[in-house]
Amino acid sequence: MKQLAIDLNSDVGEGFGPYTIGNDEEIFSFITSANIACGFHAGDPSTIRKTLDLAVKNGVAVGAHPGYPDRLHFGRMNMAIAAEEVVDMILYQIGALELMAERAGLRLQHVKLHGALYHAAAEDRRLAEVLLDALVRLTNPPIVVGPPECVLQKEAEERGLDYAAEGFADRVYGDEGKLIPRSGKQPSLITQPAQAADQALQLVRERKVSTSSGKKIELKVSTICIHGDTQGAGRIARAVFEKLEQSKIAVRPLRQIIE
Amino acid sequence: MKQLAIDLNSDVGEGFGPYTIGNDEEIFSFITSANIACGFHAGDPSTIRKTLDLAVKNGVAVGAHPGYPDRLHFGRMNMAIAAEEVVDMILYQIGALELMAERAGLRLQHVKLHGALYHAAAEDRRLAEVLLDALVRLTNPPIVVGPPECVLQKEAEERGLDYAAEGFADRVYGDEGKLIPRSGKQPSLITQPAQAADQALQLVRERKVSTSSGKKIELKVSTICIHGDTQGAGRIARAVFEKLEQSKIAVRPLRQIIE
Amino acid sequence: MKQLAIDLNSDVGEGFGPYTIGNDEEIFSFITSANIACGFHAGDPSTIRKTLDLAVKNGVAVGAHPGYPDRLHFGRMNMAIAAEEVVDMILYQIGALELMAERAGLRLQHVKLHGALYHAAAEDRRLAEVLLDALVRLTNPPIVVGPPECVLQKEAEERGLDYAAEGFADRVYGDEGKLIPRSGKQPSLITQPAQAADQALQLVRERKVSTSSGKKIELKVSTICIHGDTQGAGRIARAVFEKLEQSKIAVRPLRQIIE
Amino acid sequence: MKQLAIDLNSDVGEGFGPYTIGNDEEIFSFITSANIACGFHAGDPSTIRKTLDLAVKNGVAVGAHPGYPDRLHFGRMNMAIAAEEVVDMILYQIGALELMAERAGLRLQHVKLHGALYHAAAEDRRLAEVLLDALVRLTNPPIVVGPPECVLQKEAEERGLDYAAEGFADRVYGDEGKLIPRSGKQPSLITQPAQAADQALQLVRERKVSTSSGKKIELKVSTICIHGDTQGAGRIARAVFEKLEQSKIAVRPLRQIIE
Repeated sequence: MKQLAIDLNSDVGEGFGPYTIGNDEEIFSFITSANIACGFHAGDPSTIRKTLDLAVKNGVAVGAHPGYPDRLHFGRMNMAIAAEEVVDMILYQIGALELMAERAGLRLQHVKLHGALYHAAAEDRRLAEVLLDALVRLTNPPIVVGPPECVLQKEAEERGLDYAAEGFADRVYGDEGKLIPRSGKQPSLITQPAQAADQALQLVRERKVSTSSGKKIELKVSTICIHGDTQGAGRIARAVFEKLEQSKIAVRPLRQIIE
Repeated sequence: MKQLAIDLNSDVGEGFGPYTIGNDEEIFSFITSANIACGFHAGDPSTIRKTLDLAVKNGVAVGAHPGYPDRLHFGRMNMAIAAEEVVDMILYQIGALELMAERAGLRLQHVKLHGALYHAAAEDRRLAEVLLDALVRLTNPPIVVGPPECVLQKEAEERGLDYAAEGFADRVYGDEGKLIPRSGKQPSLITQPAQAADQALQLVRERKVSTSSGKKIELKVSTICIHGDTQGAGRIARAVFEKLEQSKIAVRPLRQIIE
Repeated sequence: MKQLAIDLNSDVGEGFGPYTIGNDEEIFSFITSANIACGFHAGDPSTIRKTLDLAVKNGVAVGAHPGYPDRLHFGRMNMAIAAEEVVDMILYQIGALELMAERAGLRLQHVKLHGALYHAAAEDRRLAEVLLDALVRLTNPPIVVGPPECVLQKEAEERGLDYAAEGFADRVYGDEGKLIPRSGKQPSLITQPAQAADQALQLVRERKVSTSSGKKIELKVSTICIHGDTQGAGRIARAVFEKLEQSKIAVRPLRQIIE
Repeated sequence: MKQLAIDLNSDVGEGFGPYTIGNDEEIFSFITSANIACGFHAGDPSTIRKTLDLAVKNGVAVGAHPGYPDRLHFGRMNMAIAAEEVVDMILYQIGALELMAERAGLRLQHVKLHGALYHAAAEDRRLAEVLLDALVRLTNPPIVVGPPECVLQKEAEERGLDYAAEGFADRVYGDEGKLIPRSGKQPSLITQPAQAADQALQLVRERKVSTSSGKKIELKVSTICIHGDTQGAGRIARAVFEKLEQSKIAVRPLRQIIE
């Protein structure tokens, strides 16, 4: 019987000049894939370099984490930019990160969009198409990371691109398998490390998740996101990682999971 | 006897959002290598895409044209940014351009720094070293374009990187082989198309240039820059191109010249 | 009988660093109020100073022309920024312009929002309220310029703020008194100088405008906008100005019109 | 006998969008004048509003804290921008802050330049002149805060502008009365709260300071800066404030000190 395995990813490199967000050094101990901010919603060239150095040091696979050009709202605000222009911005960011990774001796493993752009590409067919038509033209297209069962996944698979569905250890799911929005009144965040660890384990073992209403729904994911920028993020990451290890789940970089 | 040959390059893609500089469509008819602004001193992702499309359409080779992060002064102001940080910015810009070129079906041929950064890297050994140490780590390092007989050239050659010395058709040279600064009182620009064409031909045939004092000095270049952003740029570009053609000089992309 | 009078305004100072848009020097000859870009969608501190100098030289009244923080789309893209935050941005821009005007010996006459923000504040009651509640707290609130018969006007008047309804000489109106959008298929621009001049005269004399369907509707405006950034803008501005002069209409700064 | 009095100032509002620096809420309890970042090196319109609200709540006087347009280096990098252009940027920032303060019901008390610009204006006569020539034209020029005994002070006083010399509680002084640079090898920061408090008291009582060599030199200041962005800043601020209170020094806003 094949060992169960999962990738743990986190958004990192989200500082900017004199500013920092999250504790990347700590988070890097518990993840196998790093989504590195690319300088549009967060990050800057030297922050990217330092983050890549942390990835090398910790043996973590790296991916690009492009976002809208909006530092002020951390890429979390919807922007009505035309699909073709957004894709130009995404390619620009991926390319920037990829060459810096190459200098650091790393290959780009994946791309995961950030914030409002993550959700836009999962739902907006035209944006998904323009993006994937661009990626498919590349010699070494990265794995595309996004929500399970969305337009982006369907379009990626139609083009023969690798797609990795992502789950969250520390977010509450609704019955449709979508995240409960942070901005609403319903509880949306799981702040107890043990509870986040349980959800992660459930995602790997059962390929299901318990929703806010108490239902259990199917959710097939190849990677689980751990936030690095929320309070207590380090403790949650540690709890998830240790729970999976103790449960004999192999925690491996995404490329090894989806193959 | 081998036919004399030269590359003609120009800085293009220097618009930004609603703004344009120069007439790229016109200039592309007369050049063989395009230096595309990368979004720091000028340019933006969609402008890059449109410029790459022009390159495809005109069969022109493309290079990255990174600059200081300073749109306000168009990358022409010296900036006291530490060498390592500047090189991060340069790699970031090259990578962004390279991936967008790859999507357009093009390979990155060269990199030419812009404005104050062009001069800084030619003279500042530490900056040259950090930059070239980064480029030499890449799988496909681009040709480095810069002034003849400078620190950057020497260091590039020591590392086995291709270096292409650049001359100017429309700029006046001093006796040391340096350009007369635009900001001074001495005439620094050649505005007569016929005169620029003569200087270009002299650079190719004699590998020399006549200086402001009337002396003739040696200047061995592999590529000649034609400005696209000055008044009458189109007429100068046309005059240079036609003069070379009429003189049986082969005008070819840089890669073919330096091999 | 009182002489008919009108203000002519134009958006100016829309350059940025090395970039220019429009021909401000020419337009300043034909206007009585200048809307100066404030550095968010266009303009920068030194461009503001030079534009203020032109205003002094031409005896033109000045206003702030704040926009969304989006140079890339020239402030023409809708942005989902919360009302309170947008108003912070507007105050910031007005203040910046006002103090620079004070140094130049000028008083701020008016504020006219730009592009997508112009339309947002005219229609979004909450945005209009937050903005006007801020302006009413100032010692010397500027005249608010906006479309006729909109939420912004109603709310401004309720707060006792001066409001100036604006018409356009070179744009086509629909039957509801709204501008035909530039982005649609219907003709939206009037490009014939004589026709623009006729529309301006009609606005002043009849306080009406002929719509795209041939109807004539009421449109009471205190100022007419002349674009400076479209092709042939100078000829249109001249035609409008001269037509009004020949027709014995007094062309005066806004402050004199609304009193 | 007149009671000894001093102003305590701190740089605040240095966050940017999702990022924060320092603990403004804490610092505001211990200061009488706040230098608010104006959106060029740090800060943004909504951060300014929130910082002004803190000032109102704490009864603290406010000043503009303009810097170079360089978030990446937090305004600490020298920039070769021409004096006239820098002054445009300074006025722009002061104006933005002043109008936002006016909406909050506050008057602008002072202006203190930030980082590299603080030092540039203290030493570069041309920059000082252009800046002060601009400020003197304003109806209500702010108090200019800067180092003691510098070009800026001399030029300000020649123009009849109020100037307030500033000392530091938590920085080490050299024998010439200049701060030991942070970037060098010599100790430059005072990190013990009690020691900083002693230096503050010495500055007020003796109008002298003990230098790194053990000498005691004259240093006449009207305001003492407490940093809010260094580790343990809150404890230092508290120690300074309490020491002065216990020593019967009146801690008052700058306007009351210099009159």
